[in-house]
Amino acid sequence: MKKVAIEKAFTLIEPSPVVLVTTYDGKKNNIMTISWITVKEFTPEFILVTGPWNYSFHALVKSQECVIAIPSIDLSEKTVKIGACSGSDTDKFEKFELTAVKAESVEAPLIKECIANIECRVTEYIRKHNIFILRGTNAWTDAKRKNRKTFHAVGDGTFIADGRKINHRKIMISKIPEGV
Amino acid sequence: MKKVAIEKAFTLIEPSPVVLVTTYDGKKNNIMTISWITVKEFTPEFILVTGPWNYSFHALVKSQECVIAIPSIDLSEKTVKIGACSGSDTDKFEKFELTAVKAESVEAPLIKECIANIECRVTEYIRKHNIFILRGTNAWTDAKRKNRKTFHAVGDGTFIADGRKINHRKIMISKIPEGV
Repeated sequence: MKKVAIEKAFTLIEPSPVVLVTTYDGKKNNIMTISWITVKEFTPEFILVTGPWNYSFHALVKSQECVIAIPSIDLSEKTVKIGACSGSDTDKFEKFELTAVKAESVEAPLIKECIANIECRVTEYIRKHNIFILRGTNAWTDAKRKNRKTFHAVGDGTFIADGRKINHRKIMISKIPEGV
Repeated sequence: MKKVAIEKAFTLIEPSPVVLVTTYDGKKNNIMTISWITVKEFTPEFILVTGPWNYSFHALVKSQECVIAIPSIDLSEKTVKIGACSGSDTDKFEKFELTAVKAESVEAPLIKECIANIECRVTEYIRKHNIFILRGTNAWTDAKRKNRKTFHAVGDGTFIADGRKINHRKIMISKIPEGV
């Protein structure tokens, strides 16, 4: 995987694809499926919502680290299935035949089969709202992958695949941070 | 517009389309373009990120209310242009030929040309992170509109239109709240 400037990592999250979030609790790797995520301004900071009902939550609180891995549309069924079972009784990397790749700055692993991965540290956990503030430390992309279409959760069990791209860069050029 | 059960309103936000957010500061209506938004669990609560650099921010803080209006793909250029100018010197409803419709529970207006609108109250403003916690009070959909494709911001001036739908409802049925 090829490194992406961390200042550009928000462009991987802002379209709000369904993501896989990996954690390492000191003993084993785990993966959760999340669509409750947004960027926090034009920064490498992200807002992620999860709570104690989720097994990965405890590893996230304990380790204060995770990796946000972005699956493309060909992984949609696997991604939903990952969200429908629990790391408490399932080795999700094994069951779903995914490859854990060593990250550079966190113990949680990258997922090789994803089109991009962002290593993150928890900078704050706002318990009242189940909000985690994450700061990206390294971002990676699989530059060889041509099909980069991701997918979005509706919340009722249906999903929306990425369609055509639209370019409005000229209209909003004054709002885009330099270098993005 | 037809009322949508507020318990289902999160399905309008979870795919994370670019949205228009209307406010009323006591004197005039305004509109901002936002893609920094996520649902907060399977609830009618939403997390929206904006700050003092945005003219609408002040109306949002003052009134503690807004409407989240969801534009379809045919409004993409207009939506980006709305985000590229300021309510401080522009009547955006007039300039962009949009129709303000009276909401039921807030002073901020619905936008008639959007496929859906959610009336919201601010329940908390977390200044440190520029996070607004919103609670939806009423949701509306234009049931007659057939093209319901929305669009997602990448953050670099490009956007992704909704593509095909995928149904994984059977896999995640145990996670979906009753009635959704």
